[in-house]
Amino acid sequence: MECPLYEKIANQIEQQVHEGIFLPGAKIPSVRKSSKQMNVSVATVLQAYSLLEDRGVIKARPQKGYFVQEHKLLHAEALKITPTVNEVSTHTMLRRLLHVSQDDNIIQFGAAIPNSQFLPIRQLQRSVGRLMRLEPEICAAYEFTPGSPNLRRQIAIRMLDSGCQLQPDDITITLGCQNAIMLSLQAVAQAGDTIAIESPTYHGVLQAIEVLKLKAIEIPCSADAGMDLDLLEKAAKKWPIKACVVTPNNQNPVGATLSYQARQRIIGLSLAFGFTLIEDDVYGELSYRDKRERALKADDKHNTVIYCSSFSKSIAPGFRIGWIVGGRFQDKIEHYAYVQSLAIPTLTQTAIANFLENGAYDRHLRKTRLTYQDNLARCQSLIAEHFPKGTQTSNPNGGFLLWVTLPKTVDAMALHAQALDNDIGILPGLAFSLTGQFHHHFRLNYALNWDNKTDAALKTLGQLCQIGK
Amino acid sequence: MECPLYEKIANQIEQQVHEGIFLPGAKIPSVRKSSKQMNVSVATVLQAYSLLEDRGVIKARPQKGYFVQEHKLLHAEALKITPTVNEVSTHTMLRRLLHVSQDDNIIQFGAAIPNSQFLPIRQLQRSVGRLMRLEPEICAAYEFTPGSPNLRRQIAIRMLDSGCQLQPDDITITLGCQNAIMLSLQAVAQAGDTIAIESPTYHGVLQAIEVLKLKAIEIPCSADAGMDLDLLEKAAKKWPIKACVVTPNNQNPVGATLSYQARQRIIGLSLAFGFTLIEDDVYGELSYRDKRERALKADDKHNTVIYCSSFSKSIAPGFRIGWIVGGRFQDKIEHYAYVQSLAIPTLTQTAIANFLENGAYDRHLRKTRLTYQDNLARCQSLIAEHFPKGTQTSNPNGGFLLWVTLPKTVDAMALHAQALDNDIGILPGLAFSLTGQFHHHFRLNYALNWDNKTDAALKTLGQLCQIGK
Repeated sequence: MECPLYEKIANQIEQQVHEGIFLPGAKIPSVRKSSKQMNVSVATVLQAYSLLEDRGVIKARPQKGYFVQEHKLLHAEALKITPTVNEVSTHTMLRRLLHVSQDDNIIQFGAAIPNSQFLPIRQLQRSVGRLMRLEPEICAAYEFTPGSPNLRRQIAIRMLDSGCQLQPDDITITLGCQNAIMLSLQAVAQAGDTIAIESPTYHGVLQAIEVLKLKAIEIPCSADAGMDLDLLEKAAKKWPIKACVVTPNNQNPVGATLSYQARQRIIGLSLAFGFTLIEDDVYGELSYRDKRERALKADDKHNTVIYCSSFSKSIAPGFRIGWIVGGRFQDKIEHYAYVQSLAIPTLTQTAIANFLENGAYDRHLRKTRLTYQDNLARCQSLIAEHFPKGTQTSNPNGGFLLWVTLPKTVDAMALHAQALDNDIGILPGLAFSLTGQFHHHFRLNYALNWDNKTDAALKTLGQLCQIGK
Repeated sequence: MECPLYEKIANQIEQQVHEGIFLPGAKIPSVRKSSKQMNVSVATVLQAYSLLEDRGVIKARPQKGYFVQEHKLLHAEALKITPTVNEVSTHTMLRRLLHVSQDDNIIQFGAAIPNSQFLPIRQLQRSVGRLMRLEPEICAAYEFTPGSPNLRRQIAIRMLDSGCQLQPDDITITLGCQNAIMLSLQAVAQAGDTIAIESPTYHGVLQAIEVLKLKAIEIPCSADAGMDLDLLEKAAKKWPIKACVVTPNNQNPVGATLSYQARQRIIGLSLAFGFTLIEDDVYGELSYRDKRERALKADDKHNTVIYCSSFSKSIAPGFRIGWIVGGRFQDKIEHYAYVQSLAIPTLTQTAIANFLENGAYDRHLRKTRLTYQDNLARCQSLIAEHFPKGTQTSNPNGGFLLWVTLPKTVDAMALHAQALDNDIGILPGLAFSLTGQFHHHFRLNYALNWDNKTDAALKTLGQLCQIGK
């Protein structure tokens, strides 16, 4: 006997989910739309959707529609990840993280993405709206590499605050800071070359190094002093280091900011040993101090620093606007950026330039930084209260990332899996190194809409640590 | 004696022009704005601007404002280009071309950018406007690589017309077709590997090959038959070809479309010699025939083809939305694309997806292709009438590019320089090869707003050829 029509439709949709036409977490067409598309009654579609809900394939969210389920799948796969690091497992974990990062039901301590309440959405909305009304040809026009002259001018003006005196032509617009770091590494090094990095460090740097077939030397980086420069010097004596990727301000994940002495010393080392410094300053504008910290680039008298940053942490992650000040590699970087894609979208470049130009950015930053400080304090006190004895946290004075060191008895990968089971995302320490370190660490993003749910989630995390012991 | 204030201001602006703060062709601040910024009277600024006009630094355009001059500079530098190809001269010529391509005063036969009248600007304007009203959070949200599921679904649907049955997960969104080609080459080859290419070919392919330190074998490509497959076979017997970049439909610049037999044969060659085919189909949707031509990928039974395309030629160049169907390289390409920039902007992805979804694209394409055919006919007849005897043109049945072969007595680089002097942009043949070929050829973009001025420009080009003899 043939199965009823609604079951056929349900089977068909389940098939599409398996084929990835509808990804986990994705919204599927509304009942009315499906009814039209398939030319069947609304009642039949409702029956089909209800069957799919029973099967655990989709899930209704009130007033929002139907979405493909994802938790079970994610959890099952997360458990499979072994606690040794290799390209695949880290890669899988990170992809999974990004995936989960778009699920509204998960408390997003994992990815370093600020909640949209911390972004000037309304101003951008106005800026883009105005552009579309007044200059719709912007859809057609290319802004070829190095990018919008006005945007580069605005960036040059902003960078005065970090102590850098630049001309617009010193700057190339990139597709976010990750792209800036990739272009820097491509300009400076070739396959087989050795790069010194902080350990732990931002996972995007690790992935760039893997993809470009470079070798990494991981230099320990502590929450209070940053990269260990004695060890960097030792490493430079021993190996032919081509470049060193360093985050002088509010390092990701440990939150360190380099002292004046450390800045002078690392520049000295780069000159003495002839390596290039690739400065990642993406959290530089989120300092909690009265004035933002200087860029390393500002003290770069001998042109040995490449500066990378973006607006993804403070204005619009989805716009993907970053930039690079390439110094003596500028020509090479600009040419490579041009060949990579000819141009970055005109619309997003222009919208950010207009936002910077109208002067609302500093007000926005001041407000945001205050909330981050409040969230940080709340986070730290909740961890002190609910986490096992011996848990330590970093004490960043900028950005929105906390580095948590658990007692040796707690495994962060197991915690990660259990947390996901409780709709809580964290990023385990393993993601921040290529050498299988940081088993008892995780990173926590506190740029969230902080409420009772967030409090409860931190409490739950603490309880999970106790169980895991 | 100190010079008067207006002269000081003029000197300061001239200095800024030299430093590149105002690029050639860029608009400088209005008189009123400058008067405010510098806290001087409007009359003083007017005097300063008038002095700068006298010096030939800026130029007033009625109702538009003041712009930095560029012609003299461009012409002088263009003449310096020697007629032998090396990285620098081609690079300089191309950068110059892009630069000029944003000058409204120049007749844009040079760059392969359609005039905005051929793009659905109004629909995109509505689409972006609606997005900003209803989903402003789009500024914040990431659409991580492989990109927007809805956009990939729309592309999968569209690609049915080219004979390809794809799932959304077979597709990765890229930053235009250039980025897709770069990612393909990076996935398939490493420094030192040999790539077979059409000759002449799209200059972006040449630049990608240079930047990635690959070796190129140029296989002659004719306007009627496309790439010479006998020679490709000979080359494959002799050299270890890793990949072959091929444009089966409306090749840039010669306009060739491969026959059914040629398609079968090139796929056979790739299997026999074990090289990957990188298909550039960016002009595929602009066929003048009733139905668009099949993609090579559609007949790719053994998964040896990587497919690259974009919407830059038919919807929105400035949005930089391309895509790649990587076949067995898909995982590698997707990972590389992710590490390159994490994501492509959400706003532009979503706007294009919405435009594709609402179904206006096919109507737009039909209309556009008809105009291109009219422009082509007009172009060919004007060239027949005004160019020296012996001039030949290609006869494309799609796209908007014409390949012009001049008599051996006319040098295309000299013509290029003289044309620019007459506010006419063309792209000389030298840009389409790494081996210094095509001295007597140039490419002509006929996706222009065609009027008496365009007619006159073609006539002028013909006359310049006569003088050059």
